[in-house]
Amino acid sequence: MIVPTPDMATTPEIAIVGGGIVGLVLAAGLTRRGVQVKLYEQARNFREIGAGIGFTKNTVGCMEKINPAVVTALRSGGAVNVSLDQQDPKSYLRWIDGYGQQREGDPMYQKPLLKLDAGVKGWETVRRDQFLEDLVKVIPEGVVHLRKRLDTIEDNEDVDKVYLNFTDGTRAEADAGKFWLCTLSTPVLAQPIPASTTVVVSDPNDWPQDKPTTARASRKDVFEALAGWCTPVRNLVELFPEELDQWALFDLFEYPVPKYNKGRVCLMGDAAHASSPHHGAGASFGIEDALCMSTLMSELIMDLREHRTSKATALRTAFDTYDKIRRTRTQWLVNSSRRVCDLFQQPEWANPAKRVKTESCFEEVKDRSFKIWHFDSTAMVDDTSREYRGSMNLATNKVKSVNGNNGVSVGHGTNKV
Amino acid sequence: MIVPTPDMATTPEIAIVGGGIVGLVLAAGLTRRGVQVKLYEQARNFREIGAGIGFTKNTVGCMEKINPAVVTALRSGGAVNVSLDQQDPKSYLRWIDGYGQQREGDPMYQKPLLKLDAGVKGWETVRRDQFLEDLVKVIPEGVVHLRKRLDTIEDNEDVDKVYLNFTDGTRAEADAGKFWLCTLSTPVLAQPIPASTTVVVSDPNDWPQDKPTTARASRKDVFEALAGWCTPVRNLVELFPEELDQWALFDLFEYPVPKYNKGRVCLMGDAAHASSPHHGAGASFGIEDALCMSTLMSELIMDLREHRTSKATALRTAFDTYDKIRRTRTQWLVNSSRRVCDLFQQPEWANPAKRVKTESCFEEVKDRSFKIWHFDSTAMVDDTSREYRGSMNLATNKVKSVNGNNGVSVGHGTNKV
Repeated sequence: MIVPTPDMATTPEIAIVGGGIVGLVLAAGLTRRGVQVKLYEQARNFREIGAGIGFTKNTVGCMEKINPAVVTALRSGGAVNVSLDQQDPKSYLRWIDGYGQQREGDPMYQKPLLKLDAGVKGWETVRRDQFLEDLVKVIPEGVVHLRKRLDTIEDNEDVDKVYLNFTDGTRAEADAGKFWLCTLSTPVLAQPIPASTTVVVSDPNDWPQDKPTTARASRKDVFEALAGWCTPVRNLVELFPEELDQWALFDLFEYPVPKYNKGRVCLMGDAAHASSPHHGAGASFGIEDALCMSTLMSELIMDLREHRTSKATALRTAFDTYDKIRRTRTQWLVNSSRRVCDLFQQPEWANPAKRVKTESCFEEVKDRSFKIWHFDSTAMVDDTSREYRGSMNLATNKVKSVNGNNGVSVGHGTNKV
Repeated sequence: MIVPTPDMATTPEIAIVGGGIVGLVLAAGLTRRGVQVKLYEQARNFREIGAGIGFTKNTVGCMEKINPAVVTALRSGGAVNVSLDQQDPKSYLRWIDGYGQQREGDPMYQKPLLKLDAGVKGWETVRRDQFLEDLVKVIPEGVVHLRKRLDTIEDNEDVDKVYLNFTDGTRAEADAGKFWLCTLSTPVLAQPIPASTTVVVSDPNDWPQDKPTTARASRKDVFEALAGWCTPVRNLVELFPEELDQWALFDLFEYPVPKYNKGRVCLMGDAAHASSPHHGAGASFGIEDALCMSTLMSELIMDLREHRTSKATALRTAFDTYDKIRRTRTQWLVNSSRRVCDLFQQPEWANPAKRVKTESCFEEVKDRSFKIWHFDSTAMVDDTSREYRGSMNLATNKVKSVNGNNGVSVGHGTNKV
């Protein structure tokens, strides 16, 4: 049996720009598959602001498929299974009325509105910075390049490589690049974050174009925003410090990217589908992206080993497949996050005369949450491989046909798009 | 073997008020199960306005379970399988851009936006009046009572029967009643209906309270409403008569009923969940209601034969179960019909720069349509029976417990609610 030895000629070189959670998870997936990876991050070290992040079961399943070390990093980073009840190991996502459907004589009562079952270990949460710290350890030495802020990309069809020019005047080459640029668009919300409690407040005013995306805010601002809310919520705000951080939140809803790929360049994670945080699923969808891309790279490496095609053709086909598989679901998230924001902020929910209408909104919240949580990543892996192989047959046939190498009309009957 | 003979003491008597499609389908289901049914309709004969109505596969499956004669009526009423393609027997629901994403030099081009696969015989459509005509023939003689307009209902707990008083001064009794009152609420739309083409136009003005729910409109009104639409749509309007009928459409979104049952009275179909027509599923959901109720009556008759409980207790339990099983899904439809109305009327869809946003809206339209079409009626029948039996055990145990008949603490361990 001949075991082909991977060499540079048959191994794709991939540049990843941006070292957030999704960038690092992809790097962990690609290095494990033998891809030559370089990851460029503009900061001087990896740092995430210390808010929590939660992953549902299906996302942890994606991590497992990408690289089991990612799951180890998640759990060694202190992930805890969210369960309020010692007797019941399941995680539930709970919606509670904050507008005050009071029980007589009990100002601390908070009416439960909806409880969604996410299953046993259904919702593992961790501090972002702790997860990131352990994730970095999974990446082999020599992959990460800090203090590299991307300036321009050159992807010229006639040239074998893609070139990345950084703002410090240096230049790097790769077979292809993937990007997690921090993309800013329409502001949707302002968010003060004290300690581990996050309050998301809709602000009708536009965020000034020339202002940074974070600002100072005061406890008083939060009190004003939550005027009319119930006692337990107001008691919680009492515990906030006087001075708070306020983040502007942006999404890509009004300015969608037209496509996730162009030639040998490809957008993933927030750069492709930044959404508001109301589903708590932005990073999860980026991790699904990373599983799709890891699958494609496994397929591509097998093709290159068999010398079936050129690197450039295989990479273009892979990125095209990635766009086909991931675009609709991830854009749906951007849209759906806006929608559930509207649903969550209906004061009507506290109106007993509208209880049945409230139930109908929760039915929608349930459907949307389950579409996120019950994602079948095994089916996505299958679809990705099938779609890529189908397109590669067309692509290689087309190349042969153009080159006229075999003098026969190839791709007969399968060349239709 | 002793076969119990059904008699009046063990057979429920049900009054149905309102003889639209759902009222008649329920009558067909209940008479088949041996229920004593009387159906009261205010009109002098059965009459539906001649617009088309379509049923997806799962609704036809419900009809089959309710009474196969309903399916025969549907098809003898001339139901046709919607398929535009001779080669492909599947039905598709198609969305086409009407705002004019033109192909150069081809003003008749209409850009396809979404095509949803409803399967083979996935969408059977029929004229309402023809279906109703054949449906009436399924109902045994003596059931239908025309020119009976309900005035008041008396449901007194101490009395064995429910009494219905009609506006002509007559009175009827039954064990329980089900109602398809024409319930009017917030106006959402005005709808001119020429021949078999329906144009649904949002009108920002309120429909006057004192005006009838139909009015005259002109072709000119429709032209004005469709200003800026593409040539094929405007050509179609050219074919309309000068004078048109305009219907106001009402739903129950802003004024939901608090519950579908009260004692031995129960709301079904539009009386419970009138929705705008944007999903084309109002009647289908009423037919699902009828399957749920037919299932409950089968269970109830078995209980009464075994003298396990009183008619009144069994009927109250059955109606309570019906409310539990049907309320959330049907209220979701009212909500969802409003939402897809907003989605369908986005001129943005014709903006090529927003194509990816458009796709994310269609993902939502698909999810909502599939929630309607892929309803598992077999699972609903199972859930209905299980829920009813569970509640009957509690209900009968409670009765025994109150009466202290057996001197033992009954319902031990199952009496918790």
